[in-house]
Amino acid sequence: MSKLKFLALGGMGKVTQNLYLYQYEQEILLIDCGIGFPDLYMPGVDALIPDVTYLLNQVEAGAKIVGMVLSHGHDDHIGSLPYLLPTLPDFPIYASTLTAQFAHDRLLDKKVDKEIQVLEDRQVVELGQFFKFQLLAITHSVPDSKHILLETPVGKIYHGSDFKLDKTPVDGRLSDMDFIQEIGEKGDLLLANLDCLRVEREQWTPSESTVGPALFREMENVSGKILVTLMSSHLHRIQQTVDACERLGRKVVFVGRSVEQNVKTALQIKNLTIPKGLMLDKKKMSQVPDNKLCIIIAGSQGQEGSSLVRVVYGDHQIVQINNQDKVIFSADVIPGNEVPYYSAIDQLAADGIEVVYPDIRPDIHRSGHASRVEQELMLKLLKPKFVMPIGGADRHRALFKKTVAQPLDYQDWQILLPKSGDVLNIDQKGVSVAQQISLMATTIDGLGIGDVGPIVLSDRLNLSKAGIIVILLPRFNKKIDFTKMQVVSRGFVFMKEADEVINYIKKETLVIAKDLGNNVKDEELKHRLEKRLARRLFKIIRREPIILPVIWDF
Amino acid sequence: MSKLKFLALGGMGKVTQNLYLYQYEQEILLIDCGIGFPDLYMPGVDALIPDVTYLLNQVEAGAKIVGMVLSHGHDDHIGSLPYLLPTLPDFPIYASTLTAQFAHDRLLDKKVDKEIQVLEDRQVVELGQFFKFQLLAITHSVPDSKHILLETPVGKIYHGSDFKLDKTPVDGRLSDMDFIQEIGEKGDLLLANLDCLRVEREQWTPSESTVGPALFREMENVSGKILVTLMSSHLHRIQQTVDACERLGRKVVFVGRSVEQNVKTALQIKNLTIPKGLMLDKKKMSQVPDNKLCIIIAGSQGQEGSSLVRVVYGDHQIVQINNQDKVIFSADVIPGNEVPYYSAIDQLAADGIEVVYPDIRPDIHRSGHASRVEQELMLKLLKPKFVMPIGGADRHRALFKKTVAQPLDYQDWQILLPKSGDVLNIDQKGVSVAQQISLMATTIDGLGIGDVGPIVLSDRLNLSKAGIIVILLPRFNKKIDFTKMQVVSRGFVFMKEADEVINYIKKETLVIAKDLGNNVKDEELKHRLEKRLARRLFKIIRREPIILPVIWDF
Repeated sequence: MSKLKFLALGGMGKVTQNLYLYQYEQEILLIDCGIGFPDLYMPGVDALIPDVTYLLNQVEAGAKIVGMVLSHGHDDHIGSLPYLLPTLPDFPIYASTLTAQFAHDRLLDKKVDKEIQVLEDRQVVELGQFFKFQLLAITHSVPDSKHILLETPVGKIYHGSDFKLDKTPVDGRLSDMDFIQEIGEKGDLLLANLDCLRVEREQWTPSESTVGPALFREMENVSGKILVTLMSSHLHRIQQTVDACERLGRKVVFVGRSVEQNVKTALQIKNLTIPKGLMLDKKKMSQVPDNKLCIIIAGSQGQEGSSLVRVVYGDHQIVQINNQDKVIFSADVIPGNEVPYYSAIDQLAADGIEVVYPDIRPDIHRSGHASRVEQELMLKLLKPKFVMPIGGADRHRALFKKTVAQPLDYQDWQILLPKSGDVLNIDQKGVSVAQQISLMATTIDGLGIGDVGPIVLSDRLNLSKAGIIVILLPRFNKKIDFTKMQVVSRGFVFMKEADEVINYIKKETLVIAKDLGNNVKDEELKHRLEKRLARRLFKIIRREPIILPVIWDF
Repeated sequence: MSKLKFLALGGMGKVTQNLYLYQYEQEILLIDCGIGFPDLYMPGVDALIPDVTYLLNQVEAGAKIVGMVLSHGHDDHIGSLPYLLPTLPDFPIYASTLTAQFAHDRLLDKKVDKEIQVLEDRQVVELGQFFKFQLLAITHSVPDSKHILLETPVGKIYHGSDFKLDKTPVDGRLSDMDFIQEIGEKGDLLLANLDCLRVEREQWTPSESTVGPALFREMENVSGKILVTLMSSHLHRIQQTVDACERLGRKVVFVGRSVEQNVKTALQIKNLTIPKGLMLDKKKMSQVPDNKLCIIIAGSQGQEGSSLVRVVYGDHQIVQINNQDKVIFSADVIPGNEVPYYSAIDQLAADGIEVVYPDIRPDIHRSGHASRVEQELMLKLLKPKFVMPIGGADRHRALFKKTVAQPLDYQDWQILLPKSGDVLNIDQKGVSVAQQISLMATTIDGLGIGDVGPIVLSDRLNLSKAGIIVILLPRFNKKIDFTKMQVVSRGFVFMKEADEVINYIKKETLVIAKDLGNNVKDEELKHRLEKRLARRLFKIIRREPIILPVIWDF
């Protein structure tokens, strides 16, 4: 019998860029299709999409994508759809109602036309000859989230994407613990892939429904406007804020493209309930006194250009803020965003505006991810033969092994910690690495897809550290005229103060060129100039600007 | 009677760059002389030093710097000495033993010769006609830290730099609470400036001496080497690690320039005790089996190029690491450093090396800063007429006002929250803003001091986001020859794929130049090219590279 192949196309050990491939013989099932977020070392890049080269090669070699299942509506699970679908053959996509609608919105944004099929919980879907799957209800920070039970020829697999075990969810839709228990009781689960992101936390993650009362308390006794900023897909948080507004007699205004779009979608499919007359169009805000207003606004990470940040710095067209108002950050900082997030909070504080945020009011935000004890419970209930932590960074995966799986007597061979690019072979007998491929995420930069690669990024980083020096060398009749050499620079030193350095560079260029003689080839001359000038400048000033010699024939 | 002037030269609301100016008539007293750390928006910059323009102007106008007092040995309080002393007239500098020695080391590094005068606690020093001061013992994350009691003609001022109230400090040297109480009992304190950095935390900061047992537990039962990384000036942490090594029979090796230098200094002045034979030179490490080794290593923030990071990525000349070893991060991440810090931890986890860090073992690191209750106690004891939170960001200062000062019945006029650059006039009657100046920190970039200003930094940021396009336009006999135009770029798109864009730019340049006609001035042509090409490229590809037209006369 064949083995099942498994590969994370977005890279294992990455929290975002979720796209998982399960292949049996010539049939491929995909789970999720998310974007990733660039780090400090990818300046200018807007987003990352998973590398589908392996997938395309398989298709090329005759494999068929029998379907894709979406677990929930966060961008790191659906955001790559509009970029990747046009590059892939057609296949059916399945999701819950809200997830399908959010996916549809993302596709429409980029004018990609594709129907998503909506499934009921536990509804069994057969894909091709080899795969069956069911969605099952699970709680997370976006409604209508699902886990996925796969049946494959080698056995059953539980794909446990992002989740928490919320005992009192805002919409009352509990995780399907009965089904989970049933899977475990059958005792034939081959593999469970489980969200390990929050394994560092030992206490059960508090229920989302505890946030409502905390928000209400913060919204009482405010003499001006209230601004609540949150993740725009967090409809349960939005619902609780709306409920608090109703009790406090404040109109609700939504500001920010993502918030407005998600609210519209959620209202259509009744994932959000706003009493008649409570919602106010942002253009009519001036008709209502400040103490009767609550603005739910995008930008909870302090993102440059977001609605909130424009308000904070006084650049917003509609919303102005003053020191009677209060701003509530109902969102934790996402690791890596600390600088813009706290800058926004500091600016508000400096302007004398009351601002609360989870560091000082932990109960105005609760995580959507399971803590260690919840992960442990899940594993206890499911009793798979193998377990693989997913959705976390490498430190989380290692900690899951040590603090969740090992205490439950899982042995090293049962705990799967593939490296990024490992293609696993899985069957009842065991798991092995079939192949190691290298994954390189595609960059989205402005409207460019994939045209910013490692060389461009490395140039950008070097440019940002010390700028660029362009050395222009004109050549007449096959002879460079060094007397006409010109040197221009940006980002190196302030040009008005740079005469000395520029003259030094001209002088050194001449020396280097003389050393090399007349018969040196262009590439060699350029290369030597780059190397030697870099070394000499570093000695003098300890900086390494990009040096770009240009030879120009006339 | 004259008023006392107060100004934070490093900027209020900044945590680092500590340099405070107190002026009475023509006499100026300075406290601390620290460096600052650049943020994301200052790529390539190594450090920031406070803007002393105001100080120099005062000196120019006849004022005299009567002295400088250093509160403790952290770089954000002493690191600017070697940069600023050479630019200032001579004056005496005072500090405690260890602080003086650390300051001396910093000065020696840059070959600046200056004696620091060592003071006993409570020793009264008179400076000029107007100032007297005393150092008093306080606990913090570097030994021999002091607070400063100033006597000025307008009244007494308590300058409460970075501190915690550690009831069981490692060296047994308690904060001088008797003296603090005495100051309060006299009831004549005019102003207390207090470290507010950790005001978000409500629980008394645990004693540093609780860290030792926690470190010991983590260091037991390790079959390979132990690496402990920590702040290199944290001698109490180093002492506790050394003590654990003694109990465990492990030799101690120090690796990393800053750690090695500070240990050497501390041993000389007996601020650190290492039993004979316990310390091992790093070059002799190979003579001792791994399970008898503990390496105390610099790089606890995951800083690029640090010893720890070189070990993590296998680039260290002496220290190699394997999966029998254990790495202990005995340091929290400093806000803004999250990416390199967690990258180092993730890499170790991915390589199968056991790594512990404060997120999962809070007791292996304890803060050196006072929590809200300690700040409150300090204020209660000192009973100043005015209070000013210092050493925190704007959100901390606002929170200090709300949660520390207001609950103790301080009124708004008594709580001083000057903006950056506010020069305060202080006397018994009240405090007002005498003047607002603009402060611009000086950049240290490589060996350059102050040659990287706002324009260069803005260029670097723009270069990092979308690169640069240089348009070379040769001119012969006063006429630009567009047929010989050349376009080069870096960091924009990968050049081999960029032909299309380059051709587009050439075409557009021609169109724009034609539009403008022959009589256009150089500056005007360049300006128009920049603007229009930027706009058109943004439309096509949503990027904004720097566009640098160069006209070149032959």
